[in-house]
This record gives sequence, C-alpha cells and structure tokens, in this order.
Amino acid sequence: MIAFETQTIAGGVTAPAGFRASGVACGIKANGKPDLSILVSETPASAAAVFTTNVAQAAPILVSREHLQRSGGTAAAVVVNSGCANACTGADGLSHAREMTRLTAAAVGCKDEAVLVASTGVIGVKLPMEKVSAGIRLAAGALSPDGGAAAARAIMTTDPFSKEAAAEASTRGGTFRIGGMAKGSGMIEPMMATMLGFVTTDAMVAPALLQRALAAATDDTFNAISVDGECSTNDCVFALANGASGVALTDDDYPTLVAALRQVCEPLAIDIVRGGEGATKLITIRVTGAKTNADAKTTARAIANSPLVKTAVHGGDPNWGRLVAVAGRATRTLVLERARIEVGPVELFSNGTPFDERAAEAADYLRGKDIELHVDLGTGGPGEARMWSCDLTAEYVRINADYRT
Amino acid sequence: MIAFETQTIAGGVTAPAGFRASGVACGIKANGKPDLSILVSETPASAAAVFTTNVAQAAPILVSREHLQRSGGTAAAVVVNSGCANACTGADGLSHAREMTRLTAAAVGCKDEAVLVASTGVIGVKLPMEKVSAGIRLAAGALSPDGGAAAARAIMTTDPFSKEAAAEASTRGGTFRIGGMAKGSGMIEPMMATMLGFVTTDAMVAPALLQRALAAATDDTFNAISVDGECSTNDCVFALANGASGVALTDDDYPTLVAALRQVCEPLAIDIVRGGEGATKLITIRVTGAKTNADAKTTARAIANSPLVKTAVHGGDPNWGRLVAVAGRATRTLVLERARIEVGPVELFSNGTPFDERAAEAADYLRGKDIELHVDLGTGGPGEARMWSCDLTAEYVRINADYRT
Repeated sequence: MIAFETQTIAGGVTAPAGFRASGVACGIKANGKPDLSILVSETPASAAAVFTTNVAQAAPILVSREHLQRSGGTAAAVVVNSGCANACTGADGLSHAREMTRLTAAAVGCKDEAVLVASTGVIGVKLPMEKVSAGIRLAAGALSPDGGAAAARAIMTTDPFSKEAAAEASTRGGTFRIGGMAKGSGMIEPMMATMLGFVTTDAMVAPALLQRALAAATDDTFNAISVDGECSTNDCVFALANGASGVALTDDDYPTLVAALRQVCEPLAIDIVRGGEGATKLITIRVTGAKTNADAKTTARAIANSPLVKTAVHGGDPNWGRLVAVAGRATRTLVLERARIEVGPVELFSNGTPFDERAAEAADYLRGKDIELHVDLGTGGPGEARMWSCDLTAEYVRINADYRT
Repeated sequence: MIAFETQTIAGGVTAPAGFRASGVACGIKANGKPDLSILVSETPASAAAVFTTNVAQAAPILVSREHLQRSGGTAAAVVVNSGCANACTGADGLSHAREMTRLTAAAVGCKDEAVLVASTGVIGVKLPMEKVSAGIRLAAGALSPDGGAAAARAIMTTDPFSKEAAAEASTRGGTFRIGGMAKGSGMIEPMMATMLGFVTTDAMVAPALLQRALAAATDDTFNAISVDGECSTNDCVFALANGASGVALTDDDYPTLVAALRQVCEPLAIDIVRGGEGATKLITIRVTGAKTNADAKTTARAIANSPLVKTAVHGGDPNWGRLVAVAGRATRTLVLERARIEVGPVELFSNGTPFDERAAEAADYLRGKDIELHVDLGTGGPGEARMWSCDLTAEYVRINADYRT
C-alpha cells in the first residue's frame, strides 16, 4: 500500500501544468452564447476515454474512438462544440466531425488523429461548418493556461452553472494535479441531454493505466448519477495525461490515480445532478445489505430513476413505502422482514415495522436541499452502492415539453 | 383452427351469467367514497390469477396466492378494498387479510379458502378492521346481478373514471360472456399506485386452462401498459369462470378464450393509461423490425417509460431524436442506417436520413389525444411489440409531490 494524499484545489482543466484552453462564441447557438471550446496539451498526452453505451452513437463519438485507436491512446487536443449534437446526421455528420479534428489539428499544430472531438445539443441537425471553422480558428488563437473557466462555459447548453473541479495529489514521486470540467443535462433547446466530462493531469501515465483508472473512477462518479434515466447518443468522458509535472505514475500508483481522479470526477458528477433540468434538490441514495455490489447498484439506480420517489422528495413527503416498492421491483433479494429505510437521520421502517410517528421529523428533514435516502435490503450481505439523483419537478416537464420551434 | 367470433357488449363483471357484485362505502376512505367491493359467483368457479412481480408483496397478495393453492384453483368470491394497501404491515397485515376472507366467506356462505382478497391504497398503514368488517356485511347484503358498476366504482382510488368492459364470444359449443373491471394509477392519497383487474366468465373452463389463457391475455394487455414504470406491491389480476352459460371450453378453445379475454382486458388496460395520473394523452407505441419479440418489447417498454419522450408528447414536440436515443440504449440491435421513426402518419427519420421539413405536420398530429409512435429498429427481423403509455405532465408531479398529511 502506497501512502498518498489528495486535496481539492481551485480551477479546472488548466489547473495541471502544460494545458491551455479557450472557449468562444461562433454562432452555433442562436442566442450568441459561447459554443466552442478547445483544450490543448503542450506535449502529446496519454489519452483515455469512456463512451456512451447507447447503440445510436453520434459522429464525434465514432471519430474520437477511431482516433484513440489509431494513435494508440495519445492525444494533443480536444475540440468541443455545444448547440448541436451532430447525431443521426449520417455520412455528412461523420465528415463534419472529421473536419473539426482536421481544422483543430491545423490550428494548433498536431496530427489529425491527435485531436478528440465531442458535441452536445440538438439531435438530427447538421453542424454549420462555416461557423464551426471560424470558431476553431478563433478558439485556437485564444488558448491560455488560464482558459479552463472559459472552456467550461462554452460546453454548457442550458446548464444553470458551469462545472469545474481540480485536485492535487502527493505520492512518493512528488505532487501532481488533476483538473476537470463537465456539462450536464440542460439543453439550448429541449432535446436529449448529453453528459460530457474532460479530465486533465500533469502526471505521466501510460495510456493503458490511464484508461483503467478512468473507467474505475467514472464507474462510481459519472456513472453513478441520474437526472432522468436517459442515456445520450453523445455521452463521453476524456482524460489526458501530459506528464508536465515530472511525476511518473506506474501500476503501483493505481490507487492514487483512481483516488485523485475520483476527487475531481465526483464533484463534477454531483454538480451535473444539482444542475439537472428543473432540479431543486440533490438526492444521495445509499443502498446497503445487498448480496452483491451489483445488486445494490441496480437497486440504487432504480430508486434514482423512480418518478414516485423523485416527486415525493420534491414535495417533502417522507413516503418510505415508495422506496420499499422500488427496491422490491429492482431486486429479487430484498428481505422485507429485515430491511431498513432511513430518510436522512430518521429511521422510518425497520424489521417489518413502520415508524409513522416519525413522519413529521422526516418531512422537516426533506425541506433541505441535500437529501440522503438509505435502503438496507436486509440480506445481511456486504453489497453496497451509492447513486446521486435529483427531484422531479413541474419545471422538468416544462423544459422538456416546450415545442422546439 | 376453430372458428369463433367475439364482440364487445355493455357491462362489467356481472355481464356474464351467475355473478353478483356490490360496492359500498365503509369509511376506509376519509372522504366517504365507496371503498369496499364484493364479487360472488353463484356456483364455485375456476379461478386464475396473475400477481405482481415485486418482491415486496402485500398481505392480500400472499393470502390470495395461498388460497388458490389450497383450493386447487377455484374460488367463489373476491373481496376488495380501496384506501389502504395493507402492504408492509407485518403479521397484523397478514391476519387482517385472512380476516377479510373469513368475514366474506361467512357473509356469502362459502369456505374461507374460496375467497380471494385484494387491497389498494396507502402502503404501511393498517386496515381499520371494524370498518372493514361492517363494510363486508353491508356489501354482502347489497350483492346484485346488476352490481358490476357499483363494484367498479368502489375499487377506485383517484382514478378519474371507473373501468369496465365486457364481451360475448361464440364458439362451436355456444355463446359465453366475459366481463371485467380494473383500477389504475390514481390514489386517494398520493402513494404507490396499484393496478387491479378482475375478469369473470360464464364459460366452463378448467383452472389450468384459465390460468394459461389469463397469463397470455395479461401479457399483451395489462402487462403492456405503463404510466410511470412503477410496479406496485399489490398489483393483481383475478379471473373467475363459473360455467353458468353451459358452454364448456377445452384446450381446443384456447385461442377463443385468449381472444375473448383480450377483448375485455385490452380496453381496461388502455383505460388505466388514459386515466393515469396527470395524463392528457394516450400514447400507443409500436416497435417493429426487431430481431425478437422480446427485443421489441424491451424497446417499447423503455419508450413507454422515457420521461423525455413522455414530456415531448405532452408538449406536442415531434422530437424523434429522443426515440432514437431511447431505442439505442434499450437494445443492442438497433441498426441506425435502416431504422425508421414515425409519429402518427408522419415519417420523420428513415435509413439514416431525418425529414425535419415534416416537423410541423407531426406537431399538428401531436395536438390530438391519441398518439401513435412507431419505431422500426431496422434489423429486418420479425420481432414486434406494442405498449400503451401516457404523457408526463406537471399535474403528475403535483399529484405525487403533495405531502400526504
């Protein structure tokens, strides 16, 4: 076991050494808000990515995956646009995504295949390539070691706030930094939400190790959130490691790397939920007493996506019966006679007995903005999981029911 | 192949010969509305049942299952209360459910085990047994061959209307009738919805055949609907066949029986969706071009439960990209280049090409109350499925967010 410590620091993707970023407005969004970001590593970086599991994958997903394969897991730049998802756009869409990487490569001086690309916005609409092309030139000229915040703003759609996080980790080889930015479920027009995440580090990490650590850190951060159970055609998380800190991480440092990645990914993931469409409350769901972690995660995910649980939390209703019902449909392993339900600090059901006299206390707790729900499935097993979700509100319906045109 | 025809007739559970029913108010509901129903067959009937797949099963589910086993698939009466689910109520709950069957058996003159019981309402609250006991006596005294409508009203919670259907089927042996009633997702208090269905027939059908036919008919009717993807602790569908028509059905009549059951179960199922909490539109989802029927059903179910699809339909937004995205996450077998999306009569996406110029036409169509969505997954396979759902509205949130007390 290697001793290490990590601590949160200010900043985002440009907090680690050797990264520059920028965000500009180039007219993809009709409202004139920033809509194109570039992130560049001063030296070629190891690169890793986690992509949407959706079978309908957008053109930028296909191109980025292809580039990572061709480059053997290295990259020098990432270009991202908001306002248009470039999904379900056929051969033109693929050609547009490739063109974005070519233009970025030319502007920052690297190979095409060293550029990763991501898009978010409306599905089925083609990119306005003249605007995108001008935007890439503009963004390349604006690259700055202080550009992380601008980049984070330009990947937003209707996110209520931009999302950045950074951390510093110390290990036997020295100190390195990790930075990140993300965007969540809000859209310039009420279309499919896309979750994008970008993580940088100035540690030196081989691509395979970076990929393994990113997958692990994503699993219980970005993959442990849900706003509405939907999975986009464009979801992706990229990680770049450029070694600029001089700290080289080996397989022995895997726990350090995962912990440091989590320290950045977890607040970004939680911020995505806090900024979920129409959300007024963050819900942290903890499931324990499952036979396996997988059972626990299935249950936690079902609770995170339950409209009845999400509306109950919205209304401040300590309606524990809904948690039992969701747990009962999500897993075959609920043992009702030994199960336990807690809403914040208030135990409402235990060993088959409801404590309805505590409902008022639980209702008080639910007036807060940070809500914890705990379900113990009662199997006595070691399985547990945590998920983050938000409440379901009339505003969510309003945002997503408005006709686009 | 046996020739048969079925036609819809007026009435509900007492449309077939030899059934009596009643519905009364006994004070389980604080607002004084009817809350207890009894359904009786004049002669012992074959009985079949389909129960919730939820692991957390309410006391009446456990008792009814036990009675069906002990009686070898026969029953003479069904007692149902609304206003209290008798779920998560421990040993007391079990004893209350048994007591309901004992009281009903005594009042109508049959064995305890010949009585099935169902409950719907708030989870985790015990039944007020004095009121229930008085209600059973009252309902037994009110039993009538015209009591179907009263029974259908007394099983409602906040259903906006009661749900009855009946059909007459002619086969080589003669003419028999099937009747039914159901309740859906609306509650006296905003708690877990429960779907209850009750089907009667005056055909003579052996219990095993009735069970097989009920399971088949339920599969593409009651099991093909979703209001909010939730599955209750109390869901059940009962069928009683008393032979009063003198028409005996054998295994050869299985297609007739299933068709006749579907003719009653399908309108009841659709009415449950129409009366779904906050619903303003019925959505019929058809999925074709899947490799298997199971793939098609998985996709149809995901669309039926997608908050983004349900809000888009609510807002009249022909947002076909959401259908692609849901199909892509629900199945591994979507072939985007050959997939097809239709909103009513309007094709919006086909063979990789969007037809956004038809969006206005599709938006016009979406102003209606009966919406059809068709997704062809493009695999060229024979798999298809149909599901019914409703739109997701701010009213759904309001109903389910209101604090209970």
